[in-house]
Amino acid sequence: MDITYEHLQGSGAGDVRAAIRSGRYSGQTAGLGAGCLQANVVIMPEAYALDFMRYCQRNPKPCPLTGVSDTGNPMMHTLGRDIDIRSDVPAYNIYRDGKLDGSADNILDLWSDDMVAFALGCSFTFEHAVQRAGVPLWHIRHNTTVPMFRSNIETVPAGRFSGKMVVSMRAIPAAHVDDVAAISRRYPLAHGGPVHIGDPAQIGITDTSCPDWGDAAPIGRDEVPMFWACGVTPQVAVEQAQLPLCITHKPGHMLIADVPEDAEVPVIAPQMSADA
Amino acid sequence: MDITYEHLQGSGAGDVRAAIRSGRYSGQTAGLGAGCLQANVVIMPEAYALDFMRYCQRNPKPCPLTGVSDTGNPMMHTLGRDIDIRSDVPAYNIYRDGKLDGSADNILDLWSDDMVAFALGCSFTFEHAVQRAGVPLWHIRHNTTVPMFRSNIETVPAGRFSGKMVVSMRAIPAAHVDDVAAISRRYPLAHGGPVHIGDPAQIGITDTSCPDWGDAAPIGRDEVPMFWACGVTPQVAVEQAQLPLCITHKPGHMLIADVPEDAEVPVIAPQMSADA
Repeated sequence: MDITYEHLQGSGAGDVRAAIRSGRYSGQTAGLGAGCLQANVVIMPEAYALDFMRYCQRNPKPCPLTGVSDTGNPMMHTLGRDIDIRSDVPAYNIYRDGKLDGSADNILDLWSDDMVAFALGCSFTFEHAVQRAGVPLWHIRHNTTVPMFRSNIETVPAGRFSGKMVVSMRAIPAAHVDDVAAISRRYPLAHGGPVHIGDPAQIGITDTSCPDWGDAAPIGRDEVPMFWACGVTPQVAVEQAQLPLCITHKPGHMLIADVPEDAEVPVIAPQMSADA
Repeated sequence: MDITYEHLQGSGAGDVRAAIRSGRYSGQTAGLGAGCLQANVVIMPEAYALDFMRYCQRNPKPCPLTGVSDTGNPMMHTLGRDIDIRSDVPAYNIYRDGKLDGSADNILDLWSDDMVAFALGCSFTFEHAVQRAGVPLWHIRHNTTVPMFRSNIETVPAGRFSGKMVVSMRAIPAAHVDDVAAISRRYPLAHGGPVHIGDPAQIGITDTSCPDWGDAAPIGRDEVPMFWACGVTPQVAVEQAQLPLCITHKPGHMLIADVPEDAEVPVIAPQMSADA
């Protein structure tokens, strides 16, 4: 029997992952696993892993690395107890030679001894902090997906990984812009401070009402558009890299870790780890 | 003709590196390249690089990665203009099979097509911020090296890399402990917040007057010993890993980057990079 989103609200990260692993929940994760780090997921053969780690190190705002598996070991033991990357993400996208080739509820049959899984921080963490500071976010209030755009900002290449930075846009009341920038800078693992504030054209965005991903959101009178590096950037980079096989989470369907989302480092204490 | 430390004080990072590259300066770098990021250096064959990056990702406090070269390319192009890791560090230690096998002013003859160079943040950045906040640091006032100890804190292993965390100790007036902790947390690339505050025995340190590295420093009345993860940790890990060849900077003789030490990310803007 399926489990509903409403049923999982208020559940701990481990209970949400158990529902996902059992196949009884395959929905989006925003607002679930309250207080725990959520992460983008990218899985690829080891042959490309060193260059991908270099790409993340060189582009820490779009690609904040929060966990890396051992080669062939699907347990993400630094992120929590008993996290199996093959089954604990609600939905996966499967890319072959850079093209989307279907999605799946688990990847038990696709995982192999030469795979490496990467977890990358996402913007939920800083959005929660912004809301706690009393600044409303339009896309959350209206239950839509934040608008994302392909900017003209080049990422720093590494091996076959390169491409433009994808950015998310949030329209913020002018009086709160400085505060929101400062709050987001405190979360380097959630994309850090904004990469641009103000005129969208300066970073190559001509029409904010037509996002490349997500849903359009208005820019109100007295609001300023603020742009942050976005976790879709590495997805675009791996698509362009045309790896023979690459698996990602399905957007919005994140990995929920046991690490608190405001932890200074994304590593659970060794004594908490079942298999460390 | 050699160049003196005094002559280089006030020089920019590029000028200091030029003096080092020419072989005219091979001394320590504390206080030089004012305002620029300084980094620990570890160089190893590519075969070990993926595990070493995993080790750094899992132990971000002792091993904050600030730069990684392409395999075989000695230019650290994300850290600055024209930084050649083979010649721009004042002094190198050379390890073979985990044992120190000499030191050198440059490694032009040791670098090869399969080498990868890593730069890791160091504590200078947060020490400068602490001093700017008006808190004196004994080892700086007395021109000694900060005392460092092998703690009983296990690092999270990755491949053949593992070992105890090395920590540095600074005795801080009790009234400033919270401020100093908060200041250091702002610099995740300079080891971040303290890993322990107070009783040294709790992390396995029995005699603070006998540091394992550096010089002893007193703990005054009304002072509290504070401990931070230390950049010697990865040096110990690579020694224990017994790599056939591994090259590090000589302690205190750091790489000086062009990136400002308080930069949000340790990457120079692409348009500043000569070879990006």
